[in-house]
Amino acid sequence: MVATRARIAVDAMGGDHAPAEIVAGAIRAKAELDVDILLVGDPDQIRAATPNEENLSDLKIVPAEGTIEMHEEPLSALRRKRKASINVSMDLVKQQEADAVVSAGHSGAAMAAALLRLGRLKGIDRPAIGAVFPTVLADKSVLILDVGANVDCRPKFLEQFAVMGTVYSKHVLGIEHPKVGLLNIGEEASKGNDVAVQVHQLLTDHPAVPFVGNAEGRDVLSGQFDVVVCDGFVGNVLLKFAEAVGESVLQILREELPRGLRGKAGTLILKDNLKRIKQRVDHAEHGGGLLLGVAGIAVISHGSSQAPSVFNAIRLAKEAVDNQVLDRIQAQYHKVAMPAADGE
Amino acid sequence: MVATRARIAVDAMGGDHAPAEIVAGAIRAKAELDVDILLVGDPDQIRAATPNEENLSDLKIVPAEGTIEMHEEPLSALRRKRKASINVSMDLVKQQEADAVVSAGHSGAAMAAALLRLGRLKGIDRPAIGAVFPTVLADKSVLILDVGANVDCRPKFLEQFAVMGTVYSKHVLGIEHPKVGLLNIGEEASKGNDVAVQVHQLLTDHPAVPFVGNAEGRDVLSGQFDVVVCDGFVGNVLLKFAEAVGESVLQILREELPRGLRGKAGTLILKDNLKRIKQRVDHAEHGGGLLLGVAGIAVISHGSSQAPSVFNAIRLAKEAVDNQVLDRIQAQYHKVAMPAADGE
Repeated sequence: MVATRARIAVDAMGGDHAPAEIVAGAIRAKAELDVDILLVGDPDQIRAATPNEENLSDLKIVPAEGTIEMHEEPLSALRRKRKASINVSMDLVKQQEADAVVSAGHSGAAMAAALLRLGRLKGIDRPAIGAVFPTVLADKSVLILDVGANVDCRPKFLEQFAVMGTVYSKHVLGIEHPKVGLLNIGEEASKGNDVAVQVHQLLTDHPAVPFVGNAEGRDVLSGQFDVVVCDGFVGNVLLKFAEAVGESVLQILREELPRGLRGKAGTLILKDNLKRIKQRVDHAEHGGGLLLGVAGIAVISHGSSQAPSVFNAIRLAKEAVDNQVLDRIQAQYHKVAMPAADGE
Repeated sequence: MVATRARIAVDAMGGDHAPAEIVAGAIRAKAELDVDILLVGDPDQIRAATPNEENLSDLKIVPAEGTIEMHEEPLSALRRKRKASINVSMDLVKQQEADAVVSAGHSGAAMAAALLRLGRLKGIDRPAIGAVFPTVLADKSVLILDVGANVDCRPKFLEQFAVMGTVYSKHVLGIEHPKVGLLNIGEEASKGNDVAVQVHQLLTDHPAVPFVGNAEGRDVLSGQFDVVVCDGFVGNVLLKFAEAVGESVLQILREELPRGLRGKAGTLILKDNLKRIKQRVDHAEHGGGLLLGVAGIAVISHGSSQAPSVFNAIRLAKEAVDNQVLDRIQAQYHKVAMPAADGE
C-alpha cells in the first residue's frame, strides 16, 4: 500500500485562484519535495494556466470535468458532477493510485467527497477538520480541531478528535510530546457547557491522549498547547475570526504606519521587518486544514490559496503519508480501515 | 427614581490594580464627567492609595469589608462576605442610593451579586454580559453578547440578548439604526448548530430586532454589524481570544520591528504612529462589559483594568443611566421590573 514516494492528487480546479496558482504550487512541490504529483482537472485549462509548459512534464495530469462551485450544496453537486475534480481526486486514493488529496476548493464538498468515496476510519464517528495556527512563539504552531465539520458534537466525538490530533501532532507536525488542551471558558474541570465538562473527564482518563487541561481563548495562540480540541461551531468561528484579525491588524498597520512624512520614511526603512511581521501574523502562510478521520489523507487548503499555500499543503500531505498517520490512528482503535461505501 | 445626575457606585476593591487604579479612574470621572461617585471599599486603603487626598473630597466613600477573590466560588463567597465591596455596591442600587455599579473584580461574583440583590428584568430569562470590541473601522465598535454568563443557551435566551443588545446599541452606544447579527458558521439561514438555526428564525420574525443575518467569525470585527449575539461559551472564547490576539500582535511588533540598525531607526521615527496602532488594536482601551438583563445597571470592567479603563467603564455606566436603558428594555416586554429577591 505504501509507495516509496508519496503520490499526491492535487485538485487543480478548486479555489479562487485555480488553476494557475494551484498548478504553480504543485510544480514547485514537485521540484523541491520528494513527491509525485497527479494534477486533477481540465488538461487544456491546466496547460493554458502554465507559463512554461515544460514545467508540467514531471507531473501527471488526470482529466476531470468541472468543479464544485462555492455556492453549490455539496451532496447534490457531487452526485450531479461525478467527474468533478474533487470526485476524481478522491477516486485516485480509493483506487490506490494516489496516497493523498490536496484541494483548495469547496471544503464541505471535499469533506463529503472523502466520506462518500473513502469512508471513515474504524472507531471514528465523525471526521474533523484540523487547522494549523501560528502562535505567539515564532517557531511553534497549534493544531485546532474541529474547525467546521461538526457543529453539534457529542462528548465522544471530541475525545476522538483528541486522539487524532495527538497522532497528527506527533507524526506530521513533529511534536515529540504534544500537549493537548480542551477549548473552554475556564481552567477548572467543572467549567464550561455540559459537553465540555464531560469531555474533560474523558480526556483526563484517556491513556493515548497527553491531556494537560482546559485551554481558554487566550491560551490558544500562547504556544503552551500543541493541540486544542473543540466542536466545529466554535472552532469555525475562531478560525474565521483569527484569519480576519490577522488581516485587520495588517490593514491597520498599512493605514497607520505610513501616516505623515516621518511615517513614510520610517515605513520604508522597516520594509524587511514588516515583511517578517506579515509572515508571522498571516494565517495563509501556515498551510492547510487536515481532514482527519476519513480512510485517506486529505488536506483542505484555504479557498484563497495561492502557490505558497498550495506548496505548504502538499508538504503537509507528504508528511502525513510518509509518517503513516492513518495506520497510527487506526492502531489506536485496534482495527482495520472500514471499506469505503461504493460511490454514495 | 431618576436622579438629575447619575450616581455611580464604584467597587474600589475589585481588580488586579485595586484600589489605586480604580480610585484614580473614579477621581478622573468625577472631574470630567457629570456624575456623582460612591467609592465602595475600605476607607483606609482607599485613602492610602490616593496620592493627593483632597482629590477624594468630591467623592463619597461608602465603607465595605473585604472583596471576593478571583479564586473564590462566587455564591458561597458572596454569602460568607456579606459586607464585601461588590455586595455593598449592589445594595446601594437596590436601596436607590446609586443608579449603577462599576466593578473590575471577579466577574462571576458581580453577576451573581447583581442577580441576588437586584433580580432580573421581567421578561428576561438569563442576564448576559456584553462586551464592546473595536472593529477594523477606526470609529466603529461592535457589542457582542453573551461573553460568558450563559454557557448552555436555549434559543429564546439568544433572542432576548438580541433585544437587549439593540436597546443598548441605540441608547448607550448611540447607534441610530443598529445592525444585529447572529454569530454563525455561514451566511445561510440553514447553517449552524440546532440552536443557531432556531435563533435565526426567531430573529428574522422579531419586530424589535433589526436583524440583518448571520455573522461569521470573519465578520465580527468588520464593522458591518453593531451587535452580534452568541451563547456565552463561544462568546467567552472569542473575547479572550481577541484580547490575546491583540496582545500577541503587539508583542510580535515589539520583537520584529526594532530588529537590526534599520529596524531601530525606523521604529524610533514611527513612535507616534505605533502608539496610535496600539490604541486601535488594544482591547483594554475600549471599556468594560455590560451586565444586561438584571434590574440595575452594572458595568464589569476587565480584572486588569487601570485608571483609563475604569474611567471608560464609568462613562459607559453614566450613558446607560442617562439614557434609561432599563426602562427601554423593560418597555419591550410591556411589564415592570421584577422586585429583587431579598438578599439571597
